[in-house]
Order: sequence, then C-alpha cells, then structure tokens
Amino acid sequence: MIADTAIISPKARLGRNVRVGPFTIIHDNVEIADNTSIGSHCEIGIESELSDKSPLQIGSDSLIRSHSVFYESSTFGKNLVTGHSVLVRENTHAGIGLQIGSMGDFQGHCSIGDHVKTQSNVFIAQGSVLKNYIWLLPYTVLTNDPHPPSDVVKGVILEDFVVIAAMSVVLPGVTVAKGVLVGANSTVRDNPEKDTVVVGSPAKTICKTNKIKLKDGSDLPAYPWRRHFHRGYPEEVVKEWLNSVNDLDLNDYDIS
Amino acid sequence: MIADTAIISPKARLGRNVRVGPFTIIHDNVEIADNTSIGSHCEIGIESELSDKSPLQIGSDSLIRSHSVFYESSTFGKNLVTGHSVLVRENTHAGIGLQIGSMGDFQGHCSIGDHVKTQSNVFIAQGSVLKNYIWLLPYTVLTNDPHPPSDVVKGVILEDFVVIAAMSVVLPGVTVAKGVLVGANSTVRDNPEKDTVVVGSPAKTICKTNKIKLKDGSDLPAYPWRRHFHRGYPEEVVKEWLNSVNDLDLNDYDIS
Amino acid sequence: MIADTAIISPKARLGRNVRVGPFTIIHDNVEIADNTSIGSHCEIGIESELSDKSPLQIGSDSLIRSHSVFYESSTFGKNLVTGHSVLVRENTHAGIGLQIGSMGDFQGHCSIGDHVKTQSNVFIAQGSVLKNYIWLLPYTVLTNDPHPPSDVVKGVILEDFVVIAAMSVVLPGVTVAKGVLVGANSTVRDNPEKDTVVVGSPAKTICKTNKIKLKDGSDLPAYPWRRHFHRGYPEEVVKEWLNSVNDLDLNDYDIS
Repeated sequence: MIADTAIISPKARLGRNVRVGPFTIIHDNVEIADNTSIGSHCEIGIESELSDKSPLQIGSDSLIRSHSVFYESSTFGKNLVTGHSVLVRENTHAGIGLQIGSMGDFQGHCSIGDHVKTQSNVFIAQGSVLKNYIWLLPYTVLTNDPHPPSDVVKGVILEDFVVIAAMSVVLPGVTVAKGVLVGANSTVRDNPEKDTVVVGSPAKTICKTNKIKLKDGSDLPAYPWRRHFHRGYPEEVVKEWLNSVNDLDLNDYDIS
Repeated sequence: MIADTAIISPKARLGRNVRVGPFTIIHDNVEIADNTSIGSHCEIGIESELSDKSPLQIGSDSLIRSHSVFYESSTFGKNLVTGHSVLVRENTHAGIGLQIGSMGDFQGHCSIGDHVKTQSNVFIAQGSVLKNYIWLLPYTVLTNDPHPPSDVVKGVILEDFVVIAAMSVVLPGVTVAKGVLVGANSTVRDNPEKDTVVVGSPAKTICKTNKIKLKDGSDLPAYPWRRHFHRGYPEEVVKEWLNSVNDLDLNDYDIS
Repeated sequence: MIADTAIISPKARLGRNVRVGPFTIIHDNVEIADNTSIGSHCEIGIESELSDKSPLQIGSDSLIRSHSVFYESSTFGKNLVTGHSVLVRENTHAGIGLQIGSMGDFQGHCSIGDHVKTQSNVFIAQGSVLKNYIWLLPYTVLTNDPHPPSDVVKGVILEDFVVIAAMSVVLPGVTVAKGVLVGANSTVRDNPEKDTVVVGSPAKTICKTNKIKLKDGSDLPAYPWRRHFHRGYPEEVVKEWLNSVNDLDLNDYDIS
C-alpha cells in the first residue's frame, strides 16, 4: 500500500487503505482519510508562510495522480480526483467530488463548492469563489488583479452550473450567474445574466442557453445540462436536479 | 543504461540499448524498442480502465524527457521525441516521428499520422484525428464537446500540412483542410478551405497561404512551407514533398 | 541540507547552505551559490547539444521549487524564485530577482533583465528580450516565428515596466514599449506606444495607462504602478523608481 521509496512523515495521519506511490513525499501537517490513493512523484503538505498552519485534509475515497503538489492548510471533501501534475496551494477549501484536471493550478485562498469539475490546465487565482456543479474546460483562467501588479484582489464568483469553454478568461471581480455558458476563447468582463450564452472578447450575450440543441440526434435543448447529463454524479444529487429543472422548465426557460 | 533508482517491472519488454533515468517507473504492460531513452521521474505504462489492455508500444530511437507520463494501450512509431512533463493517455495511436512539446496533454483515443510536431502545452482532446506533417504551436487546444458537459464527442480533424499558431482553439467537429494556416489566438468554428490563412474569433479567411512572404530577405512565398523547410525530416519524405509541391505550384497555388 | 535520495554529481559546485530536496538530480555542469534551496523531484543542469557548454549558474539566496528542470549554460542573478514544474532551457541569461511562475516554460537563448516577474504558465520563445521590472501574468505567450515552421527567429522585445495581462500572445518581432499594459486575452501585432493600454486581437490602443484608476478606494491613477506598488523589490530600486516617476508625472503622464 505504501511504496518502499515513499517518504512519509511519522506525524502525517493516514487513514485505512491509503495507498502511496513510489518517490512520493508526505510532510508532517497532513491528514488523509480512508481509501485514498496518492500516485508517484507527488509532494503533499508543503509548508507555507501564507497558511494558517491547519493541516491539509484530503477526504476519503480520493485519487491524486502522479507529480502533484499540495500545500498545507487546504481541505477537500470525499471523492477528490486529480489528474497528473496538479498544484494546489494553501487555503483552498473544497466540498465533495472536486475534479482537478491535469496541470491544474489552484493558487489557494479560494472557496469551492460540491461537484466542481475542472479539466486540464485550469488556473484559479486567489480569492476565487466557485459554487456547485461547475465545469471549467481546458485552459480556463480565473483572474483577480484589476490593475496588475497590485495588492487589490477582486476574485471571480462562479454561481451553480456555470460552464466555461476552453481557453476563456474571466476578468477580476466578475460574477458569472447560475447556468451561464461561456463560449471558447472568450474574455468575460461584464457580469453575464442567468442561463445565457456569452461569447467573444469582451464576451457578449448571444442567446439563452436553452436555444442550443443537443447534437446527439434528439434536437432537445442542450441546457440546462443537468436535465440529461448525469455521469459521475451521486443519485441523490441527480434527483434534486431533476426536481428543480422541471420547475425551471415552466418558468425561467420559456423565453418565447 | 538503467538507473539504479528506476523501478522496472520484470514484465516490461525493453529492447537493446534502452536507457532509463533515475526515479522512473516502468509498469508491466509496456514494450520499448531499441535505442530509446526515457528520462528521469517518468511513469510509463499506467493501467487504465478506459484502455483495451494492449501494451504501450514506444518505437525505436525515441526520446521521452523527464517527468512524463504515458498510459498503456498507446502506440508510437520510431523517433518519438517528447519534451518534459508530457501526458499521454490510453489509445493514442501515432505514426513515426511524432514530437510532443513540453507539458503537452494528449487525452487519448485519438489518431495521429507521421511526422506531426506539437510545441509546448498543446492539448489534444479525445477523438481528434491528426493526419501527417502537422505543426501545432504552443497552447493549441483541440476540443471535442459541442455542448459541455455531454457524452457527445465531435473530434477535430486536421489534414496534412496544417499549421496552427499559438494559443488557438479548434472547436468540436471542425475539419481543417490541407495546408491551412490558423493565425495566433484564433477560434476555428467553420471549416477552413485548403491552403488558406484564417484568423480571429471566429476565424475568418484572410488570403491564400502563398500570399505570405518569407521574412528571410528572399521575398519568396512562405507557404507551402514544405518547399523550403526540411529540418528534421527524412530525405525520402522531403523528396516526395518536392515532387508534389511542384505540381501544386502550377495548379492550386495560382490564385491570380 | 542535502536529502539522502538526491543524486548530486561530484563535479557540481554547491555553495554554503545549499539545500537539495529528495529525488532531485544535479548534473555535472552546475554552479549553485550560497543559501539557495532546490526542491524535490528536480533535474538541474541537463546537457544540451544547443548549449555553449558553460555551466548553469544559479545565484545566491534562490529558491527553485519542486519538479523543475534547468538545462546547462543558463545564468541567473541572486534571488531567483520559481514555482513548481518550471522548465528553463539552455542559454537563458537573467539578472537578479527573476520570478518564474509554476509551469513556466523558458525555451532558452533569451535575455532577461532585473526583477522580471512571470506568473504561472508563461511561455518565452527563443530570441526573446525582456528588460527590467516586467510583469507577465498567467498564460502569457511570447512567440518568435513569423511564418511557422521556419528557421527565421524574430524574438519579442519587452521594455522596462511592461505588464501583460492573462492569456495574451505577443507576435514575432514586436517591440512593446516602456510602461505598456496589454489587456487580457489580447494578440499584440503592432508595436504599442509607451505607457499605453492595448487590448484585443489584434490589440488596439485604448488610452494612456494613467487613465486607469486604482480600485482600492483612492481613485488615484493605477499606472505607473511603480509609484505605489513596491512589495518584493529592494529599497534602492524603489528609491530610484520614485525619483524617476516624479519626473514622469510632470512630463509624459499629463495628457490632458
């Protein structure tokens, strides 16, 4: 379960069935819950001058892939899954089911809800607030400095069910409302309205999200996606979604 | 040839003159052909639930640089060269002479021809098809989901001799025709026509590629590049190019 | 100070109080000055066919974080600080106080002045020239090939005090004048004028930088930033800035 070449601090607290790969380092100030696997070549629980000295806590049934780096004083609910070579700095606080794509770079001092999924190479600046059920596609960048360099931090707020397509930037201080879809390679400067599609630099509103049709032959609306896409979410979450989506159908989504 | 600290499965099949750097792990389901070098801190042949359980095959005379990660069930012809910290998932099938720039992220389930060259930090989504003699410059992103998140996969197709400049995104399902040049920081939504330059978000056609002049003092057309740029390609490939380019000169390239 | 599992060439020259983390490799052709720390899982001083065989020189009081890779024949003044997983190729020559954000990718054969700070995932092509006091925000890309692929190298020149916001590309051969601010997700094709803000693809001039106001409640001009932002710079540098900024205030910055 623990590779011979791993270096585990005797002060680190590891639960039952925790696996640790070769050449991985686990520092003192770390708590890893049951059934979690850490890949090879990782460094877990790095000390930081910017931390509050609380332990790094990794929830149960998690998977951290190889070459990843986590600092102390961050907390993750169960079922954290990461790609390879991710970096997570201190004071990142996330709920359950967080997915961090390979080469993701979370700068810490940020708040993340439940079931947030980021794909490869996503950058989360300090001060960001991500609510629940969010999708960030490859090379999404959340910024925080309105006039760099400065000490002013205006983090981005992403509400529930926000989807940001590849290679888009959200500018400092922007709030992206519930259910918004940001098109690829966009620059979000103005706060988009709920359930709209915004595209471009600066991003402009194109339509309501429910105008986009599924390309699976059904011609049904592709959004809100929680109506039809459930892979990887717990049953109780899906049940709750379906109830709320039905309400939405009758009210917010009819824009004829 | 094999570093003392490398961990090599006795089931892995290594050819003659294979070198393996310190702290590198080679798993069971791996075949590495003669004269190939693997750098330090790599993990090669990771098992995957999404694979068909066939071995990872690395061709002869290849070079995989440090901190790279390869999954099982991918195949590469001879003369694979990678930068550092590349990630290649399962079911990536590539011909000879593939070059993957540092921090490249190949998500697997894709098909790559001969002599494809990607520079740093290129992202290849599942379902992508890359033909031959392609150049992807830094931070090129090939996407695949037309309405994320979904289970619909519309991979991008890149025909022979496509060049994509830095920081461009190709949207799901797009086919980029032979010899197209995509300008930097573009978003390719519509299928570009053969031997055209497209730029912008969404990318618009600017001109035929042969309107761009070489900035080497010669004032000759910079495209088709295979007429003058041969560094790193085998002699027989260059010979074939020159024959076909001469034909092209008389036919497709005269747009006066 | 030197981890048991580190592999240090007996030919490498390490100063006093040099620390080396676990699983790090230091090759022959390396000189590391006093009080410098190298994190875990690094590879330092890789040989290169493209180098002039001079040693890699790391200045005193530097910090190289984990999973980083440096080639031979590059030189850095004191107080180099890097994030994790940075890559620096041969013939990179930098002054004092260089900061390289995590996953930064410096392709070598470039020249960097004093107190240059790059954030995460910045790409510096060969032939780039960066003067002093520059800030490159996440995912900045400096290119060099005007018609890829080719052997023509037209590096970018960034003058003192240039700031480039997230996800911007500077095209080959561009000179960015002193004090320019490039907005996020821009493509810089034309040479911007001194102390201007340029935004878009291609980037257009919006205003002088001093038209941007601080969002700290003061409503003072946010630029030139050296008037008010001094964190992390030596006292003598700040003193020099303040003198020159006062001159600028009376002359160049009054555009009423």
